[in-house]
Amino acid sequence: MRYDQSISATGKDNLRVIMVSTRNPLNIGAAARAMANFGFSRLRVVNAYDVAFREARSAVGAAPLLQTAEDYSSLAEAVADCRLVVGTTSVGHRELQHSLRRLEYGGRLIRRALGDAPVALLFGSEKFGLSNEDLSHCHWLMRIPTVDTELSMNLGQAVALCLYELSRDPRAARVAPAKETTRAAAGETEQVTRMLLEILQKSGYVNPVTAGSTEEKVRRLVRRLDIAGRDVPVLLGMLRQILWKVG
Amino acid sequence: MRYDQSISATGKDNLRVIMVSTRNPLNIGAAARAMANFGFSRLRVVNAYDVAFREARSAVGAAPLLQTAEDYSSLAEAVADCRLVVGTTSVGHRELQHSLRRLEYGGRLIRRALGDAPVALLFGSEKFGLSNEDLSHCHWLMRIPTVDTELSMNLGQAVALCLYELSRDPRAARVAPAKETTRAAAGETEQVTRMLLEILQKSGYVNPVTAGSTEEKVRRLVRRLDIAGRDVPVLLGMLRQILWKVG
Repeated sequence: MRYDQSISATGKDNLRVIMVSTRNPLNIGAAARAMANFGFSRLRVVNAYDVAFREARSAVGAAPLLQTAEDYSSLAEAVADCRLVVGTTSVGHRELQHSLRRLEYGGRLIRRALGDAPVALLFGSEKFGLSNEDLSHCHWLMRIPTVDTELSMNLGQAVALCLYELSRDPRAARVAPAKETTRAAAGETEQVTRMLLEILQKSGYVNPVTAGSTEEKVRRLVRRLDIAGRDVPVLLGMLRQILWKVG
Repeated sequence: MRYDQSISATGKDNLRVIMVSTRNPLNIGAAARAMANFGFSRLRVVNAYDVAFREARSAVGAAPLLQTAEDYSSLAEAVADCRLVVGTTSVGHRELQHSLRRLEYGGRLIRRALGDAPVALLFGSEKFGLSNEDLSHCHWLMRIPTVDTELSMNLGQAVALCLYELSRDPRAARVAPAKETTRAAAGETEQVTRMLLEILQKSGYVNPVTAGSTEEKVRRLVRRLDIAGRDVPVLLGMLRQILWKVG
């Protein structure tokens, strides 16, 4: 068993995103942009409503992959070269005849299959989803884990979510990113502390009797601020000015 | 360290999705629907372009949470009750002054923080994203891991992706779903095999000399078909009819 693999460029090239009977050019455009965003490029369109498809193709900022999208008149032809055919569904009232998998798990199965052969991922029309005939071409179905299966999700969002799950790098969730903010060095923090204390003394904040414990209190407080290294000069500049004013 | 926790209902109620200077009613609507889809309900809007917000509110099928969205005139007020403020960004050309985390990792940090206190998740305008002033209210920034940071993503998609990552159940990726298709019992598969063999014999397919090895070949083939339990009666019905015809 291979776990938590992230997808390769070949894998991405093996995915065919297939839109069946899509009607809304805005949604076709959003779906195509989601593909470009996550590095997928093979778009197939079945039974596209001609006007919608032409509009989407000619829209300003249309993804180049819309230009190279392949147009099919039947789903059977569109999936013919695929070893695995997966339908997406919101599972409304329909009695499902297929295994239904959550996106998290289905995504893993698709990622694995993409290493070996072309995989089709089907999206239905905005209004009706995939028909029973469409579903009969699928090996299994995948659903986005929404809280309420009655709620609709727009096509552009559904495509983006599926492709994100396929592209998601599980290791990225575990490892802290390399470039964190550099914290101030202890010496810098101490500089800030000293200057703040001097200001407090000159302002009459420090009671000479308890000066020792006040100093410690202020030092702990400044430590807790966890100042970023690059903020030190700015802070010192501010404090110097205040010190000049109160001194 | 708590790993791979999925989010509780209280956690979801602690998230404030904050849209800053959003202009497009379609996008506000899509963002609100994404929130409803993933079970989040606290929407705040800062500096909303009035017309857009009113249009989104009155749109057919508008999420009820648009009705209860809170309207703020400054970001400072909108985030005042939050212990953690996270900005989303596509990281264009801007020099970033903040730690930038990938969605997979940032999502985990937010999930953890949501257990204790309110967290703000900020989305900027479609055209310009969050301004430097907006960003100065953030503890850190989060980016959706697209292949090319120059590509735009629409607001509805960005909100859906972030909320999906927060709601994602890592265990669901590991465990096979309980309800898989039930495979045929061995006895049922054997019934299919026997009937198919009878048809083949009556059709003159089986050479009497090699009948034994043919039988084994057919049995192995039928096993490989991995027939679903509920398909057995249908298959037997078909075979029975063919048997009648060839007999």
